[in-house]
Amino acid sequence: MALIVQKFGGTSVGTVERIEQVADKVKKFREAGDDLVVVLSAMSGETNRLIELARQISDQPVPRELDVIVSTGEQVTIALLAMALIKRGVPAVSYTGNQVRILTDSAHNKARILQIDDQKIRADLKAGRVVVVAGFQGVDEHGSITTLGRGGSDTTGVALAAALKADECQIYTDVDGVYTTDPRVVSQAQRLDKITFEEMLEMASLGSKVLQIRAVEFAGKYNVPLRVLHSFQEGPGTLITIDEEESMEQPIISGIAFNRDEAKLTIRGVPDTPGVAFGILGPISAANIEVDMIVQNVSHDNTTDFTFTVHRNDYEKAQKVLGETALKLNAREVVGDTKIAKVSIVGVGMRSHAGVASRMFESLAKESINIQMISTSEIKVSVVIEEKYLELAVRALHTAFELDAPSRQGE
Amino acid sequence: MALIVQKFGGTSVGTVERIEQVADKVKKFREAGDDLVVVLSAMSGETNRLIELARQISDQPVPRELDVIVSTGEQVTIALLAMALIKRGVPAVSYTGNQVRILTDSAHNKARILQIDDQKIRADLKAGRVVVVAGFQGVDEHGSITTLGRGGSDTTGVALAAALKADECQIYTDVDGVYTTDPRVVSQAQRLDKITFEEMLEMASLGSKVLQIRAVEFAGKYNVPLRVLHSFQEGPGTLITIDEEESMEQPIISGIAFNRDEAKLTIRGVPDTPGVAFGILGPISAANIEVDMIVQNVSHDNTTDFTFTVHRNDYEKAQKVLGETALKLNAREVVGDTKIAKVSIVGVGMRSHAGVASRMFESLAKESINIQMISTSEIKVSVVIEEKYLELAVRALHTAFELDAPSRQGE
Repeated sequence: MALIVQKFGGTSVGTVERIEQVADKVKKFREAGDDLVVVLSAMSGETNRLIELARQISDQPVPRELDVIVSTGEQVTIALLAMALIKRGVPAVSYTGNQVRILTDSAHNKARILQIDDQKIRADLKAGRVVVVAGFQGVDEHGSITTLGRGGSDTTGVALAAALKADECQIYTDVDGVYTTDPRVVSQAQRLDKITFEEMLEMASLGSKVLQIRAVEFAGKYNVPLRVLHSFQEGPGTLITIDEEESMEQPIISGIAFNRDEAKLTIRGVPDTPGVAFGILGPISAANIEVDMIVQNVSHDNTTDFTFTVHRNDYEKAQKVLGETALKLNAREVVGDTKIAKVSIVGVGMRSHAGVASRMFESLAKESINIQMISTSEIKVSVVIEEKYLELAVRALHTAFELDAPSRQGE
Repeated sequence: MALIVQKFGGTSVGTVERIEQVADKVKKFREAGDDLVVVLSAMSGETNRLIELARQISDQPVPRELDVIVSTGEQVTIALLAMALIKRGVPAVSYTGNQVRILTDSAHNKARILQIDDQKIRADLKAGRVVVVAGFQGVDEHGSITTLGRGGSDTTGVALAAALKADECQIYTDVDGVYTTDPRVVSQAQRLDKITFEEMLEMASLGSKVLQIRAVEFAGKYNVPLRVLHSFQEGPGTLITIDEEESMEQPIISGIAFNRDEAKLTIRGVPDTPGVAFGILGPISAANIEVDMIVQNVSHDNTTDFTFTVHRNDYEKAQKVLGETALKLNAREVVGDTKIAKVSIVGVGMRSHAGVASRMFESLAKESINIQMISTSEIKVSVVIEEKYLELAVRALHTAFELDAPSRQGE
């Protein structure tokens, strides 16, 4: 008898009919003898509706009160699912984040889980109940309701699995697993049976939006086997697990990630003195703008060029901050570009294989795609290219790294 | 500086615009120097929407889970009002029933308040904050969310006022006070400046739906001055308070209450033996049907007739139960009537004035209205009449007991 934590997202509980389907699925697992904790998101669209309501009162809703409002979304779905289970003769009980008690810090709207009390849940499981828990929410030490930020339900699922030492945390979603790349871009993309936490982290943070990045971090940290599955289709999904010893068959590259969410900013002719990187990025960070890739070119004439990428939504804000910095640092100029895309190859196999990066660059060169920025980590190589070449680049790399599905080749 | 508990119902917070208006009102009170605790209902229609959602899963939603769902309605309004106040520069904080902590028993969907923790609220008031509390909800000793049943927000308001020893509990609603009778039936009906708890109880339970009956009971028990006011119109409203010593001017009758929600059931020819009343009403009560008026006629031929009224919604169920009882008790027959109305005259002045009942009967006789049942208490006389005579009866009694507004007489 296994203990499984199952998380269903907003689309999977988007209507009463869907909730009934989830109940059918949970019942089947229960009848197979598994102990089950089910984590739910709000009905799709509901969180946005609630935020919109708050925005009608204030453009900048008070974070504590916003959490009080948006946390009601999951509160509704957990009770509906518990009812649907009980209707099917499956004993069940719902818990809000506060009731579990999922203790978080007090960073409203983006709180972090500090501790989970597993007492109630264990007692319920022992009594044969399915425990349905509200994702995305918790409570701080003052008893105020907190939320974990968008996508936080995945994190709730993984954190519960870790606290309960569950055998597996299953994330049900609207795709049947993690793919080598986006099938909408490359028709030969293949579902991966297995991927490591590290690879998944790179894939997730690079724009394969199957799983929330914090959830993967959490799962890796506590070694919670994570499985991505389709809510309403049968199939093994993709298991995300620790990096087992490499086999001969292991592919060098597991997948190709990409995104078009970023914009590039360059500050040219900055005096190359110690502390200049902080002088440039300090004000950006102070303005609450997250920076992704950072490249500093070698110095010439005692000045250097400094380039970084930010989310496109932050582009104008970052440009303004950088303009002020340029004045202060006596830099030559600030230039920016929003028409960029980032493409990355990801794979733990890279560690033991040389020449992966050059194979990537060669493949892009063949398609006459110019590389604007390069950034590497132990298990990934990312490049920034002109946005219009994105699909071409992804397809070329997918083929070059032998990821195309054999059965579909030549389609 | 007074401590006032203000309760706003669903219509008063039915839209974002209304919530902004309530915030303006609360701000004005705050600026006048009062300490304020504001109790809110859900936006009008929201509770029904949530119940409907639950009903789509199950005709008989699990009571514990239903409470989890419907309690979200107030959770949204309290946070919206807190935001609207903070936007106006009025420090404010919202609390759910659980956060306050409003401890109730575990009778889900109709829980009773056992205890209110006033610690948090007092600290917030001391810090200059307006405290916005979710009405209608609490938490039981197991940490499960409970609701007080329909209209329970009034009860929350009064219970908080009692716990905090507030100077007044103001119930804001869509009428500007308590009237001598329903102005839609009697155009000369007058707003009462003052009414006693007892009278209000009789008025409320008899169908003047301004206040929830449990709230009035609570207010009377803890002697919390209760005031009914219009949410968006100025005016003194009606103060509901203890029975002060009677003055010469005190009217005998304060108001005329009525309802058409009831149906009448009679079981004829029941052997008149000890315990027969329990034999008849026991099964009715076991079927969870509430009985209002009960009349047993004097016995003849060792059998008796037994008549009682129930809510019309329970009529068919009650008829079925009574049919089975009739067989068991060997009664002659069961007859019923749904086309009835109940009219009551209410007033503490009745205590010191003889002949009130006969004046009522005389007035009805003059209009040739036949009385089917009579029931009296210390401060009220109720009669059941044919439904079609209801308006005629109420108008006749309103005039007979000199309740017509002088300024409007002859209109």
